[in-house]
Amino acid sequence: MNNFVYDIPVKVYFGENQLGNLGEELKKYGKRVLLTYGGGSIKKIGLYDKVIAEIKNAGLEIFELSGIEPNPRITSVNKGAEICKNEKIDVLLAVGGGSTIDATKFIGAGAFYDGDVWDIITRKVPVTNCLPIVTVLTLSATGSEMDAGGVISNLETKDKIGYMHPMLLPKVSFLDPTNTYTVSPYQTACGSADIMSHIIEVYFNMNQDLYMLDSIAEALMKTVIKYTPIAMKEPENYEARANLMWASSWAINGFINGGKRQAWSCHPVEHELSAYYDITHGLGLAILTPRWMGYTLDETTVSKFYQFGCNVFEIDKNMEPMAVAKKSIEMLSDFLFKTLGLKSTFTEIGIDDTNFSIMAKKAINGGLKYAFKPLNAQDVENIFRMCL
Amino acid sequence: MNNFVYDIPVKVYFGENQLGNLGEELKKYGKRVLLTYGGGSIKKIGLYDKVIAEIKNAGLEIFELSGIEPNPRITSVNKGAEICKNEKIDVLLAVGGGSTIDATKFIGAGAFYDGDVWDIITRKVPVTNCLPIVTVLTLSATGSEMDAGGVISNLETKDKIGYMHPMLLPKVSFLDPTNTYTVSPYQTACGSADIMSHIIEVYFNMNQDLYMLDSIAEALMKTVIKYTPIAMKEPENYEARANLMWASSWAINGFINGGKRQAWSCHPVEHELSAYYDITHGLGLAILTPRWMGYTLDETTVSKFYQFGCNVFEIDKNMEPMAVAKKSIEMLSDFLFKTLGLKSTFTEIGIDDTNFSIMAKKAINGGLKYAFKPLNAQDVENIFRMCL
Repeated sequence: MNNFVYDIPVKVYFGENQLGNLGEELKKYGKRVLLTYGGGSIKKIGLYDKVIAEIKNAGLEIFELSGIEPNPRITSVNKGAEICKNEKIDVLLAVGGGSTIDATKFIGAGAFYDGDVWDIITRKVPVTNCLPIVTVLTLSATGSEMDAGGVISNLETKDKIGYMHPMLLPKVSFLDPTNTYTVSPYQTACGSADIMSHIIEVYFNMNQDLYMLDSIAEALMKTVIKYTPIAMKEPENYEARANLMWASSWAINGFINGGKRQAWSCHPVEHELSAYYDITHGLGLAILTPRWMGYTLDETTVSKFYQFGCNVFEIDKNMEPMAVAKKSIEMLSDFLFKTLGLKSTFTEIGIDDTNFSIMAKKAINGGLKYAFKPLNAQDVENIFRMCL
Repeated sequence: MNNFVYDIPVKVYFGENQLGNLGEELKKYGKRVLLTYGGGSIKKIGLYDKVIAEIKNAGLEIFELSGIEPNPRITSVNKGAEICKNEKIDVLLAVGGGSTIDATKFIGAGAFYDGDVWDIITRKVPVTNCLPIVTVLTLSATGSEMDAGGVISNLETKDKIGYMHPMLLPKVSFLDPTNTYTVSPYQTACGSADIMSHIIEVYFNMNQDLYMLDSIAEALMKTVIKYTPIAMKEPENYEARANLMWASSWAINGFINGGKRQAWSCHPVEHELSAYYDITHGLGLAILTPRWMGYTLDETTVSKFYQFGCNVFEIDKNMEPMAVAKKSIEMLSDFLFKTLGLKSTFTEIGIDDTNFSIMAKKAINGGLKYAFKPLNAQDVENIFRMCL
């Protein structure tokens, strides 16, 4: 059991109609606000108008950067950082899902760097500072609203790289479940696959930590399993959307990690997939995770799968551990591919084995030799083949 | 489901030998440190010397207030506030359990008030400011290390009053499970009864909130049930002490509450008991809680007890809800009185019915008409009689 430092000072306004507090929160950080968002869905749901009204009411000056991509690109980040420098922006307001928030974190850091922000993401130069970030979340998935990390893609180099730094933590996040009512059943499913994966990446760890945190991880997984199908069937079910939204934040804000030394498995592998094929992150994770589980299950790892099966899927504790473990993987597959209806193979989403070798080689740079079960490039390629 | 604001910016150093960070953290807030502690147990375990060494290494000036009582008294608070004003204290360092930390919170607030700090606690004057507080925890129980409240006793008026204000939140807390190794089995049991009660007070609520938070509350209760007997038998079991310590913080820091409108039941009643008889808070709660449960269980409340029984004590879900509910109360009683060995009646701890009527009348000022099941003075007296 390792030591840890818990330090998550993000203030969260949770619930409907909390935007009345937005102006006051932004004002704490200055007058000149850069509003960042994606493809315009926030306009369709009327959120853009509400946000603009609040900023104007507070007497603040608004600048805008729209068009931030899913799997956000370094080109958008650089554009945003440029605006910050030219317009002397005081505070960033990201309105959207994880992609918009992730990009905004690096815009905030890039505001203090004269050069290509890709240098920060590739660790050539360190983060020295970051503009204060406020977020209004519209998708329950990445947890970027309450964590200190982000993932940025570079189409030129076909890289998709994750980066964390405490300075990137949002100051304030607005989590209104009704802002996710228009998220399609498919995107809801992908978001939940992402949340599940964040929990699984921490939970499946050979480094024993606090029972309390494992139990809480199980509570979060049960929450996702219970409410995702409801939110897909009844998009305006507040209870379902609220549970998924708060679970998305707590899946990845660091709390359930405690002192575990982490090396995630499916995320670095999936990042290669979406770098090469620009697929939805959660979908890639959904296809990979049960195969990765099948590949890593053996006598040395079975006890964790047994715990997972009994406590998350309520499989009979009296069954043989290996049988429980196998059944738990089946039940997770059923949840992802039958209940949520996600596509279950690479073939179905148009990915063949062309790039398996190069993607596997790049993936292992993500630290896979320190993972739950250490993986080398051949292992990753084997897992890719299981996904065909 | 109500809205809420989540805002718990306490930084926690969790684990062994983290005190090397103490000087650096204190320095952020100034040079003149008032160290507060209780009856000297921190000297016996060598913690006092370690803390003093860290403060001196950091080049800070130390002032001291010792002798803070269990059920801490307003006289100590006033003494501490006086020192702060006279010595121009910059930052408070509370080393001890909940009593020391609670008192320190009001010392910090009292430093900005010229008068008897009891005026703040009795709501005659508001909290206007508070000196920054750093804590080093030595007892897993009250959760004061990560919450914004405290309870102060006044022996003259026989009052014991709780008070919360965001300004009272500690800035930094050091949670080293080894600092609880010398806590006796009896005090360990009382501490865990307190933690359980904090969770139960939130969990048993007619105001439906997030399933996720109820599941996490259940995870915390299971943690306390699993590890308290271990910590009592093996006082130096790190895993047990660590789980209890982190559970104590999360039981009451507000996270599991979400948007529930809270009116606690057993705490305001117990505060009268310990105001009149100066008994250990956790012991009073242990005796009261199962009786309060028996008194409140009926057709309108049974579903919550059913959930509690199935999810915390793993009672068969197929049994009749009322049977599960009754069994859950029995199992909680068995845990408190058999497994933990706490005394189970007022008679055993020397409390008779002399003050039942006056204590019941004072208890209902704690808001009991808004509780899980609304209680009037007669109800409280009836519960007292069940405890004889």
